[in-house]
Amino acid sequence: MKLSKGVEWGVHCVTLLAQVEGDATLSRRMLAEQYDLPEMYLAKQLQSLVRAGILQATSGPKGGFRLAGGPEEITVLDVVEAIDGVANPFVCEEIRQRGKANASPEECLRPCGINRAMSAAYQAWRSSLRSVTIADIVRDLPESVRSRNRARLSTG
Amino acid sequence: MKLSKGVEWGVHCVTLLAQVEGDATLSRRMLAEQYDLPEMYLAKQLQSLVRAGILQATSGPKGGFRLAGGPEEITVLDVVEAIDGVANPFVCEEIRQRGKANASPEECLRPCGINRAMSAAYQAWRSSLRSVTIADIVRDLPESVRSRNRARLSTG
Repeated sequence: MKLSKGVEWGVHCVTLLAQVEGDATLSRRMLAEQYDLPEMYLAKQLQSLVRAGILQATSGPKGGFRLAGGPEEITVLDVVEAIDGVANPFVCEEIRQRGKANASPEECLRPCGINRAMSAAYQAWRSSLRSVTIADIVRDLPESVRSRNRARLSTG
Repeated sequence: MKLSKGVEWGVHCVTLLAQVEGDATLSRRMLAEQYDLPEMYLAKQLQSLVRAGILQATSGPKGGFRLAGGPEEITVLDVVEAIDGVANPFVCEEIRQRGKANASPEECLRPCGINRAMSAAYQAWRSSLRSVTIADIVRDLPESVRSRNRARLSTG
């Protein structure tokens, strides 16, 4: 079970944008430079974040990205699912209905207990990520990191 | 994020073996036939389950597989991790220490908040799967399925 590498990039970029003051934006290039990320790959994650309504993209020579809403309203789950998609990592193929052990349709009216256990675990994972906001992540940064980000990002 | 297909096979096979009475075993071929699974692929999952101490393999012409312990002692997590491995789906590459936003080693003494949120979610997923045993899964089967399995598996 593995999340795509873009998840780490996405959460870091959104966390950084949450530290930009006012209406200022950061360009794709600036975002890539902050963490030494390959700009062309990062472009895909940024597009996904815009599509999910987490970021706004502005156009023009001074165009870039900013948060579409407040960092208190964006959960880590929102960012993870924008980038990695929304899908239960367990795909039930209903093998209980196949082969010599096959159960009849009447015996399969309820979802399989295995599927239910896997889905409950997936929901526990989602709930946990939903309980942390980007504002929490920012608050949790060392003060020295936050003030450096503030200074650096406001001067461009 | 995706679990390997073998997880569904593995949990179903372990659940089936939990319904076999006494010391009887089921051969790899019989297990594959129960759910119409490709025997050669299933071999790999069965080996992983033996390596993890969940199944015992017996050799000889009547050789096969049986549970190594009681179904109350085997959790769904045990089976999932035997087959899919034990690894946090989020791999932190410490990008916070790279690029223009790089934090100093002193600022990184604590794990990154993003990493901690992802790890907490992973542990919530594991705890959820650890709370369900194979005995629970068997108990949850329709009685008609259980009695048919019992009859079919004891006659071979």
